[in-house]
Amino acid sequence: MQWKGKKEQMMEEVGAFDPVPKEELLKRMDGLKGLMAKSGIDFGVIFQNVDEFYFTGTTQKGVLVIPLHGEPLFFLEKSIERGRLESPLDIIPIKKEKEIKEVLQSKGLLRGIAGLELDVLPVAAFERLRRNLGFDRHADLAPCIREVRMVKSPFEITQLRKSGGMMAPVFEAARHAVREGASEIDIEAALIGIGRRHGHQGFLRMRGINQEMTLMAVQAGYTGAMVTYADVPIAGAGITPAIPQGSSFKCVERGIPVTIDYGGGYNGYITDETRTFVVGKLAEPFQRFFQCALEIIEDAMAYVKEGVECTDVFARAYRIAEKASLQDYFMGHGEGQVSFIGHGIGLEINELPVITARHRRVLTEGMVFAFEPKFVLPGQGAVGIELDFIVRKDKLERVTNDSFELVTV
Amino acid sequence: MQWKGKKEQMMEEVGAFDPVPKEELLKRMDGLKGLMAKSGIDFGVIFQNVDEFYFTGTTQKGVLVIPLHGEPLFFLEKSIERGRLESPLDIIPIKKEKEIKEVLQSKGLLRGIAGLELDVLPVAAFERLRRNLGFDRHADLAPCIREVRMVKSPFEITQLRKSGGMMAPVFEAARHAVREGASEIDIEAALIGIGRRHGHQGFLRMRGINQEMTLMAVQAGYTGAMVTYADVPIAGAGITPAIPQGSSFKCVERGIPVTIDYGGGYNGYITDETRTFVVGKLAEPFQRFFQCALEIIEDAMAYVKEGVECTDVFARAYRIAEKASLQDYFMGHGEGQVSFIGHGIGLEINELPVITARHRRVLTEGMVFAFEPKFVLPGQGAVGIELDFIVRKDKLERVTNDSFELVTV
Repeated sequence: MQWKGKKEQMMEEVGAFDPVPKEELLKRMDGLKGLMAKSGIDFGVIFQNVDEFYFTGTTQKGVLVIPLHGEPLFFLEKSIERGRLESPLDIIPIKKEKEIKEVLQSKGLLRGIAGLELDVLPVAAFERLRRNLGFDRHADLAPCIREVRMVKSPFEITQLRKSGGMMAPVFEAARHAVREGASEIDIEAALIGIGRRHGHQGFLRMRGINQEMTLMAVQAGYTGAMVTYADVPIAGAGITPAIPQGSSFKCVERGIPVTIDYGGGYNGYITDETRTFVVGKLAEPFQRFFQCALEIIEDAMAYVKEGVECTDVFARAYRIAEKASLQDYFMGHGEGQVSFIGHGIGLEINELPVITARHRRVLTEGMVFAFEPKFVLPGQGAVGIELDFIVRKDKLERVTNDSFELVTV
Repeated sequence: MQWKGKKEQMMEEVGAFDPVPKEELLKRMDGLKGLMAKSGIDFGVIFQNVDEFYFTGTTQKGVLVIPLHGEPLFFLEKSIERGRLESPLDIIPIKKEKEIKEVLQSKGLLRGIAGLELDVLPVAAFERLRRNLGFDRHADLAPCIREVRMVKSPFEITQLRKSGGMMAPVFEAARHAVREGASEIDIEAALIGIGRRHGHQGFLRMRGINQEMTLMAVQAGYTGAMVTYADVPIAGAGITPAIPQGSSFKCVERGIPVTIDYGGGYNGYITDETRTFVVGKLAEPFQRFFQCALEIIEDAMAYVKEGVECTDVFARAYRIAEKASLQDYFMGHGEGQVSFIGHGIGLEINELPVITARHRRVLTEGMVFAFEPKFVLPGQGAVGIELDFIVRKDKLERVTNDSFELVTV
C-alpha cells in the first residue's frame, strides 16, 4: 500500500537486478527435494538470508519451509510488502515465528525429520526455531543446499557474467593506480568506487562463522607473503589485528609484484579474479613464478571439462609446479600453504566444488569455480592469476574474457 | 622465523593500529569471570573472531579458554607467528582442535560447565567443539560477553575517537558529492575511498546470523522510506533483492533530503553517524522533521548522563516527537517503525545498551552508543541525525565534535 501504483517503477528506478523466474525457483526446490529424500529429511527449514534468496528470490525476514511432498510454505515477517514485490512465491504473512507451528502441524509435517542449516545456524537461533516451529527430530540440511547450489543454471551464469563484467573497468583503472610509492590502500581507495558505480552490490559473502572478506585486496610485496588465519594463498597484512587481511599501507616498489584480488557482485552473485602488476621489470624468481602460474592456467584450459575429477585438476597443477621445482612456493609457503587451487563461486565465495588433492568429485556442466595458481616467496612477495571458469561438456569457459597477462606499468 | 628481525618494523610499516595492552586484556577477562561466576559457568570458550580479539588482541584462528580460576589458555592454530606478534598472551600452539581436550582434562576443567557463544556459534561448530574439547555441560556465555564489552575503557574510547575521526573528511567531501541528479551510488562511490585512505579497516561487523551492513548508505528521497528486513529506521533500497539495503540508483532531487549514514572503523572499533543534506531549500514536512530531530538531540545532550535509565532516554525523545505530532513518522513508519532510538557501538555495531521503551538498564560511565532520531515520510523520504555518545558521570560526551546541522548545498 505504501508504494501505491508506483511500486514497479520505483523498483526499476532504484535497482539494476534481474528477478529470479518462478520456474527457476521451483526447479531449485525440486533439486533440493531430491537430495532431501536421499538424506531422509521430510521438510527443509531455510533461515539464512543467502539460502532464502536462492529459493525465494528475496532476503526479507522470514522462514521458508520446503516439504518433501507438497508446496513450499514461505512465512514472512518483514517486509511483507517488499517480499511480495521481489518473490514470485505465495507469501504467508506472520507477526511472530510461533505462528508457523500451527501451519506445520496442520500439514502433518511435525511428525517427520526437519532439515536445518546447521553449518550457519547459531545454537540459540536453532533452539528458538525448534521451539517456535515445534519439530522434535532434525538433521543437517546444509550438505543438500550446498550441493544443489553447486550447479548453476543459465540464469545464474548470466548473473555471474554481469558480476564479472565489473572487473574490466577496475583492472583497467589499476594500470594507472599502481605506481611506485603508492600504498596498497591508496590503490584500493582509487579503485573501490568503480565497481560500485557499475552496479556492485556493496559487499561479498563467505559462508560460516569467522568467514569474512574485503571487496578487494592489494598486495605490494612482502605483505603478499604474510600468513594469517584466512584459508587463502595470498591474504595480505591488513592494517589492524582486528581485521588481519587485505590491503595495508605497504608501498609499491619497482620490480616487486603487486597482486590485486577483486570480487565482483551482481544481484547476489560473486566473481573472484586476481591480476598481477609490476612497475618496471618483474624481478626473479617472480618472473618464473608467474610463468608457472600461466602454464597451470593454460594446461587447465586445455584439459579440464565435464567428467574430469577435481583431484586430477589439482594434481596436474601441482605436477607443473613440481616440474619447475616451485612446489614449496605453490599456493603459499610453510604455515601459509593452503590445500586448494580452486573453489566454487556463486552467492557465496566458498561454494562447491573445492579443487584439492583429496576432495573427490567429478566436474559436471554448469559448475563454476575460481581457479587461482599463486606462488608465495616468504618475506618477499607473491604473484598469481585467478580466473573464474564455467564447466562445459567439452571445455572450461571463462566468465569474462579479460586479459590475465602480467601488467607492466 | 619468517619475518626474522624485521617483524616489528614490518608491522609498523603496513599497519596503523594500537596494540591492546596486556593489563587491559587481563582486566577484561576479570570482568568476564565476575559475570561467569554469577551465571554458574566454570570456563568460558571463546571461538568467534571479534570476541577473541577483545580478549586476546588478535583474531588468528584458535580457541581461548578462560577458566573461572586460573590463567587463560590461548590455543592457536594459524597463524601462530602472527598471533605471537599481535597478542601479549602466552600462546599454546596446536595443530588440531582435538589437542585442547587433554589440556582441559589435566586442569580438571571438564568436570565443570562450559560457557559458549550460543548467539553466534553454529550448531555444527558447537558440536565439533563439544567433541574436540570434551565438555558435557554447557551454558550461554554470550550475555556475559556482551555485558563486559558494554562499558568501554579509556583505551577503547581512544580507538573509537580515531574511528570517528574518519567521518569529518567523508562528510566534508559529501558537500561536493551531493548534487541534483547525482545517484545515491555515485555519491557513495565518490566518498567510500576517503575513509579507507584515512585508515578505515575495510568493513564493519554486526553480531548474529543474517546481520549484514554496508559501510555507507545514501538515501535521496523515497528510498529512505523503503522498508526492508533490516531492523533500522532508514535502511535504503539497495540495488538488488539479494542485498536489499543501502544506496541505490535513485537520484538527488531539489528540496528532498539526502541522508548519509556512515560507519568509521579503526582497529576494530566502529562508529556510526548520520547527516542530512539537501539541494536548495528543504521541503516541508522534512524541515519540521529535522527540527524535531535536533530538539531530541539537544534534549538528550542536556539531560542524559550516568544514572539515567535507558527507557527514560527513549521516553523523552518519544514525547518530543509526540508533542510535535510526529510520533507516526518517528523511527520509521508503519511496518518499518523500529523500537529503538539508540544502540551500543564498539567492535560490533549492535552492542549494548539498546535504547528502547522496554529495555531497562541504567547508564554508567564508559558506555558508548549511537543515538539516532530519524523521521520517515512514507513514499517520500527521510531525515535524521545520528551521533555517537560516551556516557560520563555528569553528561554525554560526543565521540567526535563535527557539526550535525542540516547541510544545504
